Amino acid sequence: MGAGDDLAGLEVGYDIPALPGMTFDQVQTPCLILDLDALERNVRRMGDILHAHGVRHRSHGKMHKSVDVQRLQQDLGGACGVCCQKVSEAEAFARGGITDILVSNQVTQPAKIARLAALPHLGARIICCVDDAGNIAALSAAAVAAGTTIECLVEVECGARRCGVVSPAQAVDLARLIAEAAGLRFAGVQVYQGAMQHLPTHEARREAAAATAGIARRTVTALTQAGLSCDIIGGGGTGSFPFDVASGVFNEVQCGSYAFMDADYGRLTDSAGERLDADSWHNALFVLTSVMSVAQPGLAIVDAGHKAHAVDSGLPTVFGRPDLIYADCSDEHGNIRDPDGTLSLNDLLRLVPGHCDPTCNLHDWYVGMRGDRVEVLWPVTARGKGF
Amino acid sequence: MGAGDDLAGLEVGYDIPALPGMTFDQVQTPCLILDLDALERNVRRMGDILHAHGVRHRSHGKMHKSVDVQRLQQDLGGACGVCCQKVSEAEAFARGGITDILVSNQVTQPAKIARLAALPHLGARIICCVDDAGNIAALSAAAVAAGTTIECLVEVECGARRCGVVSPAQAVDLARLIAEAAGLRFAGVQVYQGAMQHLPTHEARREAAAATAGIARRTVTALTQAGLSCDIIGGGGTGSFPFDVASGVFNEVQCGSYAFMDADYGRLTDSAGERLDADSWHNALFVLTSVMSVAQPGLAIVDAGHKAHAVDSGLPTVFGRPDLIYADCSDEHGNIRDPDGTLSLNDLLRLVPGHCDPTCNLHDWYVGMRGDRVEVLWPVTARGKGF
Repeated sequence: MGAGDDLAGLEVGYDIPALPGMTFDQVQTPCLILDLDALERNVRRMGDILHAHGVRHRSHGKMHKSVDVQRLQQDLGGACGVCCQKVSEAEAFARGGITDILVSNQVTQPAKIARLAALPHLGARIICCVDDAGNIAALSAAAVAAGTTIECLVEVECGARRCGVVSPAQAVDLARLIAEAAGLRFAGVQVYQGAMQHLPTHEARREAAAATAGIARRTVTALTQAGLSCDIIGGGGTGSFPFDVASGVFNEVQCGSYAFMDADYGRLTDSAGERLDADSWHNALFVLTSVMSVAQPGLAIVDAGHKAHAVDSGLPTVFGRPDLIYADCSDEHGNIRDPDGTLSLNDLLRLVPGHCDPTCNLHDWYVGMRGDRVEVLWPVTARGKGF
Repeated sequence: MGAGDDLAGLEVGYDIPALPGMTFDQVQTPCLILDLDALERNVRRMGDILHAHGVRHRSHGKMHKSVDVQRLQQDLGGACGVCCQKVSEAEAFARGGITDILVSNQVTQPAKIARLAALPHLGARIICCVDDAGNIAALSAAAVAAGTTIECLVEVECGARRCGVVSPAQAVDLARLIAEAAGLRFAGVQVYQGAMQHLPTHEARREAAAATAGIARRTVTALTQAGLSCDIIGGGGTGSFPFDVASGVFNEVQCGSYAFMDADYGRLTDSAGERLDADSWHNALFVLTSVMSVAQPGLAIVDAGHKAHAVDSGLPTVFGRPDLIYADCSDEHGNIRDPDGTLSLNDLLRLVPGHCDPTCNLHDWYVGMRGDRVEVLWPVTARGKGF
């Protein structure tokens, strides 16, 4: 959505936080803002790195839930398609014109399977993950009924203890079932270790990524020996991709947070002991908040609390203001420690949220800023699409 | 919204999780479900208690953000009006026909003040809180410009260290400014201590509530001596209202969570040492989730994670299944410890979220169930209305 397109009828304040052309101080808070320069730099940089390694990038749309950001990742960063976690997200991306879509998750409810099976009719390649024989049968029946093909990756457990089969032999068994099932196509494996992405040091992530790559390698070897070839050997994220692309195993990585960054990923350190947000990736996503009370000394109350940012990975930091501490929050209030009493009513602050994915999911709009000026409003297309 | 009204054009799965008339197993997960029998019982019970004490109930709409639930609280529970925290919430309630609206928070951004000042034109009484002289001047100018009246409560700090003046003398000063300002009307005081609502024991809450009531009493006394009378002496919540109504100070309380309950409030104990959710208040709100993977022994993965429930007050519990532990989660996955391996793919579980307010704010719809049957779909009217 370009500047002002399709915003007709939306009321500033009630529906949207700003209009294109507005300056910073006219934006109504709290809302998500994107630094478009930083975003474009991150997207280009990841594209360059992965292109140099000959590894595809299927950027993770669960993070941004935005057709516009995904298009940027494809157009500017060379992403081959999108990952998402829910059928309703896949529907949002397919309706938005994205044509290569992986639901990197299990789809098991009958009504959801039927919706997934209908999606190729929108012109999209549809891939999903499986770890259960009964689920393969259900997906096959739905694809046959819909007259479509669903591509399937066998999901492999690799340390996060979520979904996924636990041995190469199980992976081979399921891959055979997929290959033999009408309406399905065996497309490869999903080997994603979510928990290790957030290990604080380069060395800790390197070790965990090596273990994940080993599991992926043994699984692919067993599949190859069984005559089953993998178009997609996928996994990886912002915390692990340097190791994943160097492993020689993965041919597709699924980074999400690199584009926006957050406080949790920012704290990780690289091989030189530098923070990831120091130079590698720039903070592009902020929760813009304003001061609504300075009635108490040393304290400023801002209008962004639990309903404006997610705290599962910690509290936000205040961008560019090391003198201020976001110390606590409730649903609609944030408590900023301001020992020098620098803040006044309606002062604007940019918060770097603890965790970008669930923070983006709280908001309906991204306010795209170029410098001090609102350039675009992008809907969070799949916000709340959790089914 | 009744059964089927205004649901035309909405797609089950993509837009809404269910349709009226469906049974439990047809609902697409994760979604919010309301046990309408439990909800109605909670609403009636609170209405009866407050009526017996002669204290008004201004039910807190920040919790449910729903015009339909608010109507139930007024029609069945005798609530006098609604509280909310944001101008956009007030707009949603006013457009939904609620005519007595308190924004129990500071409204300071100029654009928001203009929107607030316009709201009485929709036929609603509009009240907001203030703790700053400059803010009073801005509210006055906007009300004059709009040709309306904004009623103002002076907010008084009482232990939570959020907004609010810190002495009765300051309260009197601001009340005088309000009383003298064109377009404003001094309506009383807001004395709400949010942090103490969640103290675990009856005794701890009793002590904190006594301190809050003391502050309220001293403030009202100072105002009365200055010739300023308080229509509204408001505050209180689910954790403190028994003390607030017994104090003789408050004439309006602002309970929210009692209607739905959550795991955090459920753990509190009453004067007999019983959990609040044992008999006083029934769990009416659940996140319905389904099992999407049982590939690993002793573990079931469900489809509700951070994007389906808020964890700021802890993880959810599994309703009616003490044998199951919701042990961990990521954005779209929940890990259920199932030591006896009782769960199968697509089994449905009802999660009691840790904190109801930010959980409701994640979803677009309430699925109202009567027994095993979907009776109504209610929109979360002010979902995401954070401006």
